[in-house]
Amino acid sequence: MGDSRTPVQVGLLGCGNVGSALARLVGENADLLTARTGVPIEIVRVLVRDLSKRRDVKLSSDAFTADGAAVVGADDIDVVVEMMGGVEPAKSLITEALRAGKPVVTANKELIAQDGPELLAIAADAGVDLLFEASVAGGIPLLRPLRESLAGDRIRRVLGIVNGTTNYILTRMTEVGSSFEAALAEAQRLGLAEPDPTADVEGYDAASKAAIIASIAFGALVGPEDVYREGITGVTSDDIESAAALGYVVKLLAVAEEREGEVAVRVHPTMVPLHHPLASVRESFNAVFIEGEAVGELMLYGRGAGGGPTASALLGDLADAVKNLVGGGKGATIGELVERPIRAIEDTESPFYLLLEVADRPGVLAAIAGEFGEHGVSIKSMEQRGIGDDARLIFITHRAREADVRSTLERLRHVEAVHRVGSVLRVIGDGE
Amino acid sequence: MGDSRTPVQVGLLGCGNVGSALARLVGENADLLTARTGVPIEIVRVLVRDLSKRRDVKLSSDAFTADGAAVVGADDIDVVVEMMGGVEPAKSLITEALRAGKPVVTANKELIAQDGPELLAIAADAGVDLLFEASVAGGIPLLRPLRESLAGDRIRRVLGIVNGTTNYILTRMTEVGSSFEAALAEAQRLGLAEPDPTADVEGYDAASKAAIIASIAFGALVGPEDVYREGITGVTSDDIESAAALGYVVKLLAVAEEREGEVAVRVHPTMVPLHHPLASVRESFNAVFIEGEAVGELMLYGRGAGGGPTASALLGDLADAVKNLVGGGKGATIGELVERPIRAIEDTESPFYLLLEVADRPGVLAAIAGEFGEHGVSIKSMEQRGIGDDARLIFITHRAREADVRSTLERLRHVEAVHRVGSVLRVIGDGE
Repeated sequence: MGDSRTPVQVGLLGCGNVGSALARLVGENADLLTARTGVPIEIVRVLVRDLSKRRDVKLSSDAFTADGAAVVGADDIDVVVEMMGGVEPAKSLITEALRAGKPVVTANKELIAQDGPELLAIAADAGVDLLFEASVAGGIPLLRPLRESLAGDRIRRVLGIVNGTTNYILTRMTEVGSSFEAALAEAQRLGLAEPDPTADVEGYDAASKAAIIASIAFGALVGPEDVYREGITGVTSDDIESAAALGYVVKLLAVAEEREGEVAVRVHPTMVPLHHPLASVRESFNAVFIEGEAVGELMLYGRGAGGGPTASALLGDLADAVKNLVGGGKGATIGELVERPIRAIEDTESPFYLLLEVADRPGVLAAIAGEFGEHGVSIKSMEQRGIGDDARLIFITHRAREADVRSTLERLRHVEAVHRVGSVLRVIGDGE
Repeated sequence: MGDSRTPVQVGLLGCGNVGSALARLVGENADLLTARTGVPIEIVRVLVRDLSKRRDVKLSSDAFTADGAAVVGADDIDVVVEMMGGVEPAKSLITEALRAGKPVVTANKELIAQDGPELLAIAADAGVDLLFEASVAGGIPLLRPLRESLAGDRIRRVLGIVNGTTNYILTRMTEVGSSFEAALAEAQRLGLAEPDPTADVEGYDAASKAAIIASIAFGALVGPEDVYREGITGVTSDDIESAAALGYVVKLLAVAEEREGEVAVRVHPTMVPLHHPLASVRESFNAVFIEGEAVGELMLYGRGAGGGPTASALLGDLADAVKNLVGGGKGATIGELVERPIRAIEDTESPFYLLLEVADRPGVLAAIAGEFGEHGVSIKSMEQRGIGDDARLIFITHRAREADVRSTLERLRHVEAVHRVGSVLRVIGDGE
């Protein structure tokens, strides 16, 4: 690597949508990459599962291999880009590459959320980069701004729309009045949702990303098990309508915040005020809203998935890794991640939206309001929708502790006039 | 600098709003900065004009000096942060610092737009960083994402709301129906506009930022003289109303694009479709919308000015400069800036909004439409507003060459039934 014009040789793990887009960009934008890193970059080997499959990639056929060691263990590979997804065999291959002194760039949110700290330690021991900008919010520059641009600022809270599938579904429910089921079916038809949509609609995907965001924003060891998670399968057309009537839109948010030295991370459907910048993030777009002490409010918006956007993010990291490799600088650091107390969901606070199906008769509101009051939950607004058997009361509370709201609801379930406790959604207030 | 725990000693040039915010952050967030850079950072000297002025900064009084050389030439200063603004004496001081081997971080858009390439060459010769993230869009991470995150992507166009003062004025005109004069007076009362508002309202400030954005996005040598510039003083309440009626909002945009190998850069009031993400950027917020080949659409949104946001951006750069200094890596590069052909405004294309005051009688539209047709300008929609002496015709054209629109208007001025050619605004189309 002494001669700055010797090409840096890259090995890819995986060659689906993202890998093909990456290979195409490395070819077409070779001039740009060379100008920005100082050296030519060449893809010389690609790990694939099926060697017989035809691929729309301009690489000689002997570049493809079904043997992972031929990529991560080979002397002629300088840098590895992982795009296989899933924990294994990606973890073993990345570990082997790092131990062999090869920087690794990855888009693997599941692996990084679960084993990021372990892999970062291996990378640090080997003195090489492990970069994973593409693992959260696809093409949106997020981790680099959090880590570098805001290096001297204290981040208070991050709110993210980080799953395009659920944002598409909620947008359709909001804008054309689709049911959840119809919107999901449409997303599946468009290829925006998997045949088994669980990881998206139950919030697992967003929870992995929330863990990574919290780790970087607060320098904390946060794993998926630290993230409270609720999906959008319980969000009804009624909730969407009530939200609109009250001046809100429902979004699945990843929330990471620091309160009194504790880190709280959660994923749940949330009522967002219509004038909040996140409210206008439509369709399958992603956006991350950052509240920093000095910088104030920042929002980063773009495509969270797809071959092109993900490849663009991988390529930004690849250029960084190549510059560090060639320039002899030490690997990029995200600072040390330390154990931080994690605040349980019961101890977090927010305003709440609550929908109760009730008997439509005098005295009911007084009985219900009494229960709120006893648990210290203060009501900001109440509205009755429907009458008779269809009567529902919709409450927005002031900021309240989650545990207090839960106790209130537990008691309300035993109030005779309350037929059913319906939706419970957290609300993002202004300038909290 | 051998011992990684020896503090890095920083000198500030200027100590107004931004300098005070920076000094406060360096003190309060010392732990964060040390974790992220590996070394403690200390502010040891500050150049000020008036030594007798009291400042809300926790620095010993002998840190202040009125002698620039005591900062940029001193052996005990490792890094310099410039926040004086204006070309001189900032340019001479920065040059001296760079030549003495000190990395420089600056928020000075005017200087960087005018003399950036010269200063970058001096920095490259000295092998040190010259970083200027804070010079464009305040606290919004923009130049680092353009340079690093999108290192392998080809940027097609950048659209920026990069001047908070004019965005505030246009927001008030749109939302409460203020006249330009009333909105400007309000902005001045709030401290958002200078007593002499020329630099903001005539677009000079935005033009400096547009030049910097184009330079970084396209690796091109672009100076303020290459930027076509129109301010917002000619935007009338009538235009704002017509825009709303047609589904648009008027924004002062900095536009930098690459077309057939040429770079075009301009600043002008623009009609933005209401559903475009830039349309919802209100008040004094800034936002930059990036169209990349692979990444698709990205938007970065936040505070473009103010002590906290600007200091946050300076601190991100400072942390970067310190890491490079201590880690022994070479200075950050933005790649080489090269001479690129600049496309003249006459040769750029966009849809246009045109307002003509006309005689309200049969045959007038035919005469006008004839002129459009002769110059190859195709009309997308036409609407008459007002009747009799108050009759105005509002046209939206299809995409047209600027020169052809100008020729059309020149001819229309001689059509007897056209009393006056009123506003001419460029329109941002969808997915151009």
